[in-house]
Amino acid sequence: MYGMNGRLLAVDLATAQISTREVPETTWREYLGGSGLGAKLLYSEFDWRADPLSPQNPLILITGLLTGTPVLASCKVSVCAKSPLTGIWGESTVGGFWGQQLKAAGYDGIILQGKAPEPVYLWVCDGKAELRPAKGIWGKQTYDTAELIKRETDEKAEVACIGPAGENLVEIASIMFGGHDSRAAGRCGMGAVMGSKNVKAIAVRGHSRPPIAKPDALTERNRAAADLLKEFAKALTDFGTAGGVPGVEANGDLPIKNWTLGSWTEKAARISGQAQAKEILVEHYACWACPIRCGKIVTLKTGPYMDTVAHGPEYETCAGFGSMLLIDDMHYIAAANDLCNRLGLDTISTSSVIAMAMELAEWGMPLQGSEEIGLSWGNGESVLKVLPMIAQREKIGEALCHGTRKLAESLGGVAREFSVECKGLEVAYHDPRAFTSMAANYATANRGGCHLEGLTYFLEGGTFPAGLIGFDPARIQPHGTELKGAIAAKMQDFMDVFNALGLCKFLMRGRIGPEFLTDWTNCVTGWELTPDELLKLGEKLHNLKRMYNVRLGISRKDDTLPPRLLTHDRKTGRAAGSLPHLGRILADYYEVRGWTPEGIPTPARLEGLGLEWLVEDLPSVPA
Amino acid sequence: MYGMNGRLLAVDLATAQISTREVPETTWREYLGGSGLGAKLLYSEFDWRADPLSPQNPLILITGLLTGTPVLASCKVSVCAKSPLTGIWGESTVGGFWGQQLKAAGYDGIILQGKAPEPVYLWVCDGKAELRPAKGIWGKQTYDTAELIKRETDEKAEVACIGPAGENLVEIASIMFGGHDSRAAGRCGMGAVMGSKNVKAIAVRGHSRPPIAKPDALTERNRAAADLLKEFAKALTDFGTAGGVPGVEANGDLPIKNWTLGSWTEKAARISGQAQAKEILVEHYACWACPIRCGKIVTLKTGPYMDTVAHGPEYETCAGFGSMLLIDDMHYIAAANDLCNRLGLDTISTSSVIAMAMELAEWGMPLQGSEEIGLSWGNGESVLKVLPMIAQREKIGEALCHGTRKLAESLGGVAREFSVECKGLEVAYHDPRAFTSMAANYATANRGGCHLEGLTYFLEGGTFPAGLIGFDPARIQPHGTELKGAIAAKMQDFMDVFNALGLCKFLMRGRIGPEFLTDWTNCVTGWELTPDELLKLGEKLHNLKRMYNVRLGISRKDDTLPPRLLTHDRKTGRAAGSLPHLGRILADYYEVRGWTPEGIPTPARLEGLGLEWLVEDLPSVPA
Repeated sequence: MYGMNGRLLAVDLATAQISTREVPETTWREYLGGSGLGAKLLYSEFDWRADPLSPQNPLILITGLLTGTPVLASCKVSVCAKSPLTGIWGESTVGGFWGQQLKAAGYDGIILQGKAPEPVYLWVCDGKAELRPAKGIWGKQTYDTAELIKRETDEKAEVACIGPAGENLVEIASIMFGGHDSRAAGRCGMGAVMGSKNVKAIAVRGHSRPPIAKPDALTERNRAAADLLKEFAKALTDFGTAGGVPGVEANGDLPIKNWTLGSWTEKAARISGQAQAKEILVEHYACWACPIRCGKIVTLKTGPYMDTVAHGPEYETCAGFGSMLLIDDMHYIAAANDLCNRLGLDTISTSSVIAMAMELAEWGMPLQGSEEIGLSWGNGESVLKVLPMIAQREKIGEALCHGTRKLAESLGGVAREFSVECKGLEVAYHDPRAFTSMAANYATANRGGCHLEGLTYFLEGGTFPAGLIGFDPARIQPHGTELKGAIAAKMQDFMDVFNALGLCKFLMRGRIGPEFLTDWTNCVTGWELTPDELLKLGEKLHNLKRMYNVRLGISRKDDTLPPRLLTHDRKTGRAAGSLPHLGRILADYYEVRGWTPEGIPTPARLEGLGLEWLVEDLPSVPA
Repeated sequence: MYGMNGRLLAVDLATAQISTREVPETTWREYLGGSGLGAKLLYSEFDWRADPLSPQNPLILITGLLTGTPVLASCKVSVCAKSPLTGIWGESTVGGFWGQQLKAAGYDGIILQGKAPEPVYLWVCDGKAELRPAKGIWGKQTYDTAELIKRETDEKAEVACIGPAGENLVEIASIMFGGHDSRAAGRCGMGAVMGSKNVKAIAVRGHSRPPIAKPDALTERNRAAADLLKEFAKALTDFGTAGGVPGVEANGDLPIKNWTLGSWTEKAARISGQAQAKEILVEHYACWACPIRCGKIVTLKTGPYMDTVAHGPEYETCAGFGSMLLIDDMHYIAAANDLCNRLGLDTISTSSVIAMAMELAEWGMPLQGSEEIGLSWGNGESVLKVLPMIAQREKIGEALCHGTRKLAESLGGVAREFSVECKGLEVAYHDPRAFTSMAANYATANRGGCHLEGLTYFLEGGTFPAGLIGFDPARIQPHGTELKGAIAAKMQDFMDVFNALGLCKFLMRGRIGPEFLTDWTNCVTGWELTPDELLKLGEKLHNLKRMYNVRLGISRKDDTLPPRLLTHDRKTGRAAGSLPHLGRILADYYEVRGWTPEGIPTPARLEGLGLEWLVEDLPSVPA
């Protein structure tokens, strides 16, 4: 336990009992924090067989080891639970100010257990916590919820809440952090887990500051990092993540028409962050301690909230509601984004399941109710109509609210060709045909089709220098097979460090690598870690989460890509003709990981990572 | 309808009504015969939704267009039905003399419909057919069954029958044709379909000969073919298919320890046809009109039928009960083969599911009853114990009798890693890592993991000259990606021709290609087909069967290999390090086939093949 921190709030929702639990420093050293410590808790203390939407599945929110300190971009909180969308390890990491405020209130994390008999929200402020009735706000959208709760608590409180989607146990429901300047814990259906507990919101407010072991050194590191970000991450400041749309399209990395087309150049420009900046941008905003300010506020020019302001759509949302659906009107994308945020829906999974519905219609197999609202490629109005139906599970929304895998399973047959997911999580919008190391990452990412567990395209696309993570830049290329498994494994380890420390991965856009993260960690804690030790901790956390899944039966058979991304090559653009050789890439990946060809960690590797306590959960791997 | 033929026997088992049905010559021209005509009948006339073991699923046995003529090796009969093992298109093609005798009796095929109220057998002789009670032989093994029925009918009758496995609806049950000199319709669980109809056997005897349009030209072609077979197929004569074991092992093509190891050189020699010839061979035998005589009779030196004679184990059986299980004692392999033949079990699927049971035990997950009989690598005694249990569905046999896919599904989790099947059919024993065009073939073969639908390793291994089928030999190599999809598609078309004409594919060992088959067809029928037209008919039949499966929901998602063969590379031997790039190979394959990237035939391609009547069964493929 370091300094005043190392305290978790344990909330028993059934009895409304709230207790504080100390976490010793040795545990932080072993698991760092964030989704690292979250994985340790979920693995060790809860029933892994539990139905994800049952009271037996906890919802764990934990700040990173460095969250809320002056370390740049130390804004992240991890939300961990068994995922109702995928049935396996679930985590969703989110920025904003909530994590900093929780820490300032004296807590590193919150464990929600059981289920409240009536809707409640949790109010945490400066070392105190209480459950309050939320009957009056149940059913409200997220922005309204945040406003109402701030009125009842503190105008400066930070509110994490669910919208109607989470309340209705929609398996692609998010948890939203903040109001219009919101950040989303979007993936893995964490909103549904919160809804299953009758918890509408968690509001936090605090005034303390975590102690820093070496404040002067930290200031120096921050200055150096800020200079790097200023030099290299300016595009993020100017145009946000949506500024990446044209470059991503040029790389053949943008999914178009449910991943079937190769190019969309002019239309990509029309929905880009650059175009948004010209036409609808109102202002920039930042998360805690971040000089980048990649967040954007925009004006809506269509949809039910026309003429109001909203969070600007991120890259993933532009891809999802833009190129994926062949919608080239940024106003529909911004309106769809705003609706998802208000309803509490993950924009990636939601747009992906809508794309599937549109493709089903094109193939002459429209879902019931699809024609009524006109779901078809490019039809922005139909998207605005279907979003509330998904959140409310009304009509066609009931078919879509479980994500693409379950929709494909319910339909059977050729429908599976249109569900683009890994392990049940819709694949994020960077194409493993454009950067083939992403094939290894998507196939093996512990939460499923997640780009953020690997982010290897930062490296293969040249945004992040390969040398910083130990690879020879001359051997890095976007396509092909060489090194792909090794790159994916190393970057996954590094990303697990980011999530455990609570830092934003966009620091990498400033060429900030393991050395920097190690320095920051040592400055805050006074430890004397080396970069290799930090990366090895990342590897440990990756293996811990893998073991959570192995215990649930996950193995090589699940480490795959949707058929479309393995076989349907792009016909135009820079990634034309590229298909990942998944078998070879995975073989190399498992070898680097020290796993069997079946994707099972060996006892020796687990022991080498300090995870000897997991060996008893292994199938008996042959010598 | 050609000559006196073109007649099918339609047997309604429920009412015991037997009728004769004429098939006009135009239909033979369009579908040739064998499994081609079988596919046409199964597609058009029966309920494709039917449970494979219900009375609504017919069992169709049809001779090839040339079967029973003087054409060399014109011995084949196709058994077609929806497969209880896989739930999709099922066919099993078998040699021997039964087909020739059926044709000599005046019939081209038999359609068994419905279910007999009591066990029966069908007796067909010189234009007459009757159902006879089989209560007294129900429960008998196949050799005894054949003997008893010959006593009741004609000593020279040819008998196709099921053993206890088929009676007990074991989904890996075969239909055996003949006694000790038996041939098996092994694959796809056709024995269970026969058993589900209460049909124990079909005995046939005839004295007529099919007419030949150009007998002199046929004699000339036969002579030329016989010369080629004498020159190039001698090893098959001397050592049978088992003579291939050492060469297959040298190519890295032999599956070892459930496909996990790379080399087994000395042990392979010990179980080879060459070693059998030295130690246990009694005599050679041939199928109808075949100069090769690849069949072997051997003496058993272990097991319950020790000191009797038996059919010598074929290559597939040596691989299955030998290297797959690490059994290097040929006597156990011969005894296991004999037991399978007597019980009516497919040796490929049976040995594969036993390998899975052994691997489960090694991984610390033994099936219930596994330890009791000592199922473990190399234990031949345990294999002899488990075979009757599978046929009788006793104890551990109940777990194994449904094949590897259903076993994996029932166990869940990592067990799937040990089930080596495609579309539910256990992969035959030629390795797609050794000859990567086999990856495309196994992934797309209409009946599942079937080597005989493609036989591309004949071409890549140099046994069959690539030029004969239109490929440049200089561009053919065993590994890699180039041309693999095209090779698989072309060879599948060619194999569909073989099965429809009723010819044995070992003719290819004599470098007999499409030209020869066309000449023979024209000699018998008087038609004037070209080789290209014949191959296009093969393509048509392949598409027809694909459409049978497409209607059942099959698409790209099902066109894959088991995880092990995609990712676990061999570490030693000639195929070390080779893994098929399935996505690329399939992409090329679909393009050659004119199918969508989802593996669905396009309307244009179906129309071009004369299958316009199937377009209405397509999902509505986008333009």
